[in-house]
Amino acid sequence: MSTTTDMLRTYPKDLGGVDTAALAACIEACFECAQVCSACADSCLSEDMVAELTKCIRTNLDCADICAATGAVLSRHTGYDVNVTRAVLEACRAACKACADECEKHADMHEHCKVCAEACRRCEQACTDLLATL
Amino acid sequence: MSTTTDMLRTYPKDLGGVDTAALAACIEACFECAQVCSACADSCLSEDMVAELTKCIRTNLDCADICAATGAVLSRHTGYDVNVTRAVLEACRAACKACADECEKHADMHEHCKVCAEACRRCEQACTDLLATL
Amino acid sequence: MSTTTDMLRTYPKDLGGVDTAALAACIEACFECAQVCSACADSCLSEDMVAELTKCIRTNLDCADICAATGAVLSRHTGYDVNVTRAVLEACRAACKACADECEKHADMHEHCKVCAEACRRCEQACTDLLATL
Amino acid sequence: MSTTTDMLRTYPKDLGGVDTAALAACIEACFECAQVCSACADSCLSEDMVAELTKCIRTNLDCADICAATGAVLSRHTGYDVNVTRAVLEACRAACKACADECEKHADMHEHCKVCAEACRRCEQACTDLLATL
Repeated sequence: MSTTTDMLRTYPKDLGGVDTAALAACIEACFECAQVCSACADSCLSEDMVAELTKCIRTNLDCADICAATGAVLSRHTGYDVNVTRAVLEACRAACKACADECEKHADMHEHCKVCAEACRRCEQACTDLLATL
Repeated sequence: MSTTTDMLRTYPKDLGGVDTAALAACIEACFECAQVCSACADSCLSEDMVAELTKCIRTNLDCADICAATGAVLSRHTGYDVNVTRAVLEACRAACKACADECEKHADMHEHCKVCAEACRRCEQACTDLLATL
Repeated sequence: MSTTTDMLRTYPKDLGGVDTAALAACIEACFECAQVCSACADSCLSEDMVAELTKCIRTNLDCADICAATGAVLSRHTGYDVNVTRAVLEACRAACKACADECEKHADMHEHCKVCAEACRRCEQACTDLLATL
Repeated sequence: MSTTTDMLRTYPKDLGGVDTAALAACIEACFECAQVCSACADSCLSEDMVAELTKCIRTNLDCADICAATGAVLSRHTGYDVNVTRAVLEACRAACKACADECEKHADMHEHCKVCAEACRRCEQACTDLLATL
């Protein structure tokens, strides 16, 4: 998604000293994680052992919703409010950590959980990195 | 939305000692606030003085996205994770506070901001109340 | 959600001859249905017979996402585009019909599916009614 | 987002003869367009001539919401319903066309609208291509 960087570059006002590399990385990680978690919830739903994956599905759905909201918030720069940004990043980090922890338990058996756990860890790290710059 | 209560009542497993009244109130406040904030952003956009309302619009959009995600997370009970719930409630409370603070500045001049500020304060309080029970 | 009506009443420009009663009813039905479908997906996930409810869960999740998007689109009036409104209402009607059809199959056995099917039918009808006024 | 392809490849059941290349392209276009439209709405909001961009902002917001919902629906394969898929793709195509048409009007003056119009055209085409395979 190089368009993320294009949109940051073409923002008409000053971005206020934000670390644009960390911001772009976090936005892209959030949208990627939202997609992957939606897909992983659905893959778990199609496993024969779905009854053992219900916590994984729920965690996937939470993570998808929170990543999507976080990606949207981070895509806005007008009237920036550091308290809201920090709080939503903390929520996103918590959701990604919970989902990665859960998916890692099934990563050996279900490759979609392995792909998902990796996307969640990348997003968790991107949130941590961006929080460190605020 | 009495259907919120119906859905809590018909959940097939134990809700784990959650305060269902506080939970239902918070879910309803989140969905109400998401709708009102989407509408308030659009009303601000149609004001002749839109150039003075850009921070309000942005805060409305963030609040709408975060309330919608929070309402969805709170509607799930399977595989409950208190860390994710707490973090998303903190983010929702911060977004509602920021939006209420901003809308209250224009409440005398724009009645939609008055209605919106009230919905945000209700949701902020509902998040605070639910957090106190976790 | 009488706040829906308050927000329509306080919109600063002309609403362009829209049927505000049909519009308010449809907005409220969309947000109600989004909440109920998120909750029903989660209730199905906690049923012992979850393996027989996977299509129901998937349909619930689609309906929740589409209703939430439709409710947000309908909450905006600035720069109204009838083609987008009509297309999203058609999608919402299709999703609500599919979810109601599916949930009705399990309504006798699972009361959450009964509550959900009713919310979906209300929203399907509200979309049909609003489409008839466009 | 090669993870989109990874998630399709690791789906545990048969994908039912879907054109996976067209599906992956459409999912990626939806998530890209959702991000770009959220960012373009915010960039328009920060333009000095925001009062002349209100229709553009509204169209951006609709397109972001509909693309996000469509991307989530397309990420699910369990219990596939062609009527819902077709209807949401039609809505997404309409929203992308409306947003591209609007952003193209300002593409010479605002580079973010140029980037956004291109993302919307890609997503409109991806929806058209996927619809042709259903």
